[in-house]
Amino acid sequence: MGQYIAPLRDMQFVLHELLGLEAELKGLPAHASLDADTVNSIAEEAAKFTQNVTYPLNHSGDAEGCHFDKVSGVVTAPKGFKEAYAQYVEAGWPALACDPEYGGQGLPEVVNNVLYEMLNSANQAWTMYPGLTHGAYAALIAHGTPELKKTYLPKIVSGHWTGTMCLTEAHCGTDLGLLRTKAEPLGDGSYALSGQKIFISAGEHDLAENIIHLVLARLPDAPAGTKGISLFIVPKFIPNADGSIGKRNGIKCGNIEHKMGIHGNATCVMNLDGATGWMVGEPNKGLNAMFVMMNGARLGVGMQSLGLAEVAYQNSLIYAKDRLQMRSLTGPKAKDKPADPIIVHPDVRRMLLTQKAHVEAARAFTYWTGLMIDKSHHHPDEKVRKEMDDLVALLTPIVKGFITEYSYISTTYGMQVFGGHGYIKEWGMEQYVRDNRINMIYEGTNGIQALDLLGRKVLGDMGAKLTKFGKIVTDFIKANADNEAMKEFTGPLAALGTEVQKVTMEVGQKAMKNPDEVGAASVPYMHLLGHFVYAYLWARMAKIALDKQDQGDFYKSKLLTARFYFSKLLPETAMNLQQIRAGAGSLMAMEAALF
Amino acid sequence: MGQYIAPLRDMQFVLHELLGLEAELKGLPAHASLDADTVNSIAEEAAKFTQNVTYPLNHSGDAEGCHFDKVSGVVTAPKGFKEAYAQYVEAGWPALACDPEYGGQGLPEVVNNVLYEMLNSANQAWTMYPGLTHGAYAALIAHGTPELKKTYLPKIVSGHWTGTMCLTEAHCGTDLGLLRTKAEPLGDGSYALSGQKIFISAGEHDLAENIIHLVLARLPDAPAGTKGISLFIVPKFIPNADGSIGKRNGIKCGNIEHKMGIHGNATCVMNLDGATGWMVGEPNKGLNAMFVMMNGARLGVGMQSLGLAEVAYQNSLIYAKDRLQMRSLTGPKAKDKPADPIIVHPDVRRMLLTQKAHVEAARAFTYWTGLMIDKSHHHPDEKVRKEMDDLVALLTPIVKGFITEYSYISTTYGMQVFGGHGYIKEWGMEQYVRDNRINMIYEGTNGIQALDLLGRKVLGDMGAKLTKFGKIVTDFIKANADNEAMKEFTGPLAALGTEVQKVTMEVGQKAMKNPDEVGAASVPYMHLLGHFVYAYLWARMAKIALDKQDQGDFYKSKLLTARFYFSKLLPETAMNLQQIRAGAGSLMAMEAALF
Repeated sequence: MGQYIAPLRDMQFVLHELLGLEAELKGLPAHASLDADTVNSIAEEAAKFTQNVTYPLNHSGDAEGCHFDKVSGVVTAPKGFKEAYAQYVEAGWPALACDPEYGGQGLPEVVNNVLYEMLNSANQAWTMYPGLTHGAYAALIAHGTPELKKTYLPKIVSGHWTGTMCLTEAHCGTDLGLLRTKAEPLGDGSYALSGQKIFISAGEHDLAENIIHLVLARLPDAPAGTKGISLFIVPKFIPNADGSIGKRNGIKCGNIEHKMGIHGNATCVMNLDGATGWMVGEPNKGLNAMFVMMNGARLGVGMQSLGLAEVAYQNSLIYAKDRLQMRSLTGPKAKDKPADPIIVHPDVRRMLLTQKAHVEAARAFTYWTGLMIDKSHHHPDEKVRKEMDDLVALLTPIVKGFITEYSYISTTYGMQVFGGHGYIKEWGMEQYVRDNRINMIYEGTNGIQALDLLGRKVLGDMGAKLTKFGKIVTDFIKANADNEAMKEFTGPLAALGTEVQKVTMEVGQKAMKNPDEVGAASVPYMHLLGHFVYAYLWARMAKIALDKQDQGDFYKSKLLTARFYFSKLLPETAMNLQQIRAGAGSLMAMEAALF
Repeated sequence: MGQYIAPLRDMQFVLHELLGLEAELKGLPAHASLDADTVNSIAEEAAKFTQNVTYPLNHSGDAEGCHFDKVSGVVTAPKGFKEAYAQYVEAGWPALACDPEYGGQGLPEVVNNVLYEMLNSANQAWTMYPGLTHGAYAALIAHGTPELKKTYLPKIVSGHWTGTMCLTEAHCGTDLGLLRTKAEPLGDGSYALSGQKIFISAGEHDLAENIIHLVLARLPDAPAGTKGISLFIVPKFIPNADGSIGKRNGIKCGNIEHKMGIHGNATCVMNLDGATGWMVGEPNKGLNAMFVMMNGARLGVGMQSLGLAEVAYQNSLIYAKDRLQMRSLTGPKAKDKPADPIIVHPDVRRMLLTQKAHVEAARAFTYWTGLMIDKSHHHPDEKVRKEMDDLVALLTPIVKGFITEYSYISTTYGMQVFGGHGYIKEWGMEQYVRDNRINMIYEGTNGIQALDLLGRKVLGDMGAKLTKFGKIVTDFIKANADNEAMKEFTGPLAALGTEVQKVTMEVGQKAMKNPDEVGAASVPYMHLLGHFVYAYLWARMAKIALDKQDQGDFYKSKLLTARFYFSKLLPETAMNLQQIRAGAGSLMAMEAALF
């Protein structure tokens, strides 16, 4: 039925050898005292929790799903979820990366990423209960009044209360400007909210004593569209002045969805019937406040996909070493056995190495982004903070869009390695594909991520952010200009950089005449930049591996994986470039009636 | 909850305008009297049956699944399946492409393909009950004794009895040489079979009065490996001399699998406990006899994927025209509405056109292959029959491997167009992805298809079959050499042909030194040839569309779809070529322990 062993060595490699975490944190006063050993100890504890507590609930949670009682509106998570969450709270995990002012442990985001990779490998559906809470935390800490912070944050930080993001309505997902939920001021600083929200993950459940909803709604006098949306905090139970649970608020679960995957997480229809709420941030500027949650959530979705790709890889690798089928094309390898383990077959290796190369690049990518977020918050130099903000803005849609798509391919390969055994539920592989499928959709479909990337983040500032990233790559190439052994990596990386620059200018010029050129290029462009990031990170990892290749198999494996990436996966960019350059013509020529 | 309307006009286009069916059939004595009107009438009737009878059971069948009674071993299909099957038998559909000698209607395979596309669009899980029967029919008619044929074929042809293929065992799927099921001769011409088979689709159910299993097993003195496998017919009930149902045989369902999809089809563990069987074909040559079924089944899997891709496309198109979300990047299009229908967005169009271009090419590809099968059976000229046999052998793994992979992408896009609504079960889109996922696995994983294609079909005869296909393409290009309007299609097609030839020789040469080069190149090579076929067929369809472009929107749409294919999908070959040329090195360098 599978296994999950947290890949601690690989995590340490990224944290310490690739990112130089301890030295980086020394430059951030808020985290200067955190050392590598402490980080490693935290990771070890997280490994124990995820392997022993939440992973064993993954398959059973999928099989059982959530329960909804129509009469009471009560939602019950699968067996064991509540108890696991109690342990999670008890151990203090929710507070890991939260502000000490509210009871948090004040650890950096990059360490939280390590925790979340493991949580998602072990059980994505379960992880969404605490995971979405972090979004509510981020919105409140950035935009809440001191009063709201004081009332809600300690309980959210401790994990006794969980959070949600209530954005989508039946007629609007991507296009939040269309939303209709109303908020009437009650004159005492509070509002009465009415409307219906759908697809609310963890909207109702039995894990926590209170659920804090962050809800987008319109004030009575709000202008139409996105400029008339405000953000409100709407608790399930209204807290009393002493912080205890008060009266039940008018926000109730109307139903739960039946979905392809993430069965263990309740996806709720939430009905607001004069529910009491308080504004977070300024009137009609809710979308800005909400984007604080959204960006965090988008990175979180990348972490979900990384987690699933890792566990799928682990299991398909075990199977490929164990399953005997056919002989190697070059003659028997396991002569004492009736057939060879399927890992001898080149195409099985292609599927395994694709997973491995993706997972290790995605880990490097997300942890690096996490560290940049920490620097954007805590670096003493404002210029550095701004630089990091820009890079994170550029990279966020790539983390979300590219990692989730590659993880879909990756988990699909993991399943394929199992042949027919991958298709039956018994081995657990098909669940990873079903669970991962949502990651390409929610928190902004990948099409929206691609549009955000190319339209807003790249062309929106005439390539300024992209140039910053390009400079990091160029500096690395220059620093290794005399390194002969690195040429196999830096050569293709430099060539790709040149193409990225050229094709970006081409699209930019076409877009000035026809804005549809942006939409037409966006998805292949996102893949192109995704590979640009992966190729850069693999080149850096190859450099470390080359330097240490006589220090054991770990580095040899890294080096060979880097070579696989450059020879077999990077060629996707040849396709991406052609697709981008093919432009909007063939997409837009057909009238809708002709489809 | 979706819809399915059989795409009759598109089917007619392929049958009559692309393939010139009537004229082709005139050259085949067995089918010379079949005219286009009759074929169209059959298609219309099939459309009614699938739209009204099996399509309405698709979603409910998925939700309900099959039932297994552990005590009795009885398997019950979802509600309505049995009644629909009775209607199917009553209407004579099972007999469509069967031999009139046994009660068949003697229609060509290509017409059967039309029926099967619709059946699979409407309900893949249901269609597998009659679909697998066709494999048993094909094996019996090719290798059965006159006695066996007389006993079984009339009931199989009429559909009163269904069939299965019992190949896989727990420890062997791809590698049938490892199989252990035993067949002991009983001295009266019959055998006692014992062993366990798994993953037997439609192995047990309540649709038909008898189930005829084609079982691979070993004789007591059989040599080890694939050369010691024989094929047996093992009926659920042993027929009496008068053809009525006799005593229950010792082949029983031990369990049914819980799967990612095709819930409506029972995937059975079949236990043989001294079950009585009769040999089909010669001793120890069962694998040859079985390949008759297998090749048919592989084409059948291509049809399954085509069917799912078609229905997913239809539904995502309706949604894209209906769902209002955001404004077009070039300004509002539906000014009277709060937002534009999402079909205005370039990336939504990319997903729709990918589906459309794939589905229409796959239809042309499978129907054309069906016609080649008919010619291989019935053409009076032996040289033509051989030529067709060769082409079908070459194309079969591409139909299976390439169409199923593209359909997976295609149904995934269909789902993506729906955003969050695609992930919930209510709209039915996620089922198409789950159902289609098996098509990349069963009847030989796509990795095996790719190996069969490159290793056996292409390199196995030093490219002779590929050259035959290449000549068809070259002849078409030459015939259109003076057609300026065709240059946008014939130019890239010719360029691809040159690359295919070159890269095939390169791989062939490398493979002589290292057989792993075949396995390493196989999957990207299958994609390359898949696109070679698609590009050829799209060029031919574009030719027809250009000639008739003033005859209405249908042809305009075809032409624009062809342009989309060449500009946006064909670029995948740039990636395929690089991946093939990258060779086996980076796949094989890593020792298993280093993964």
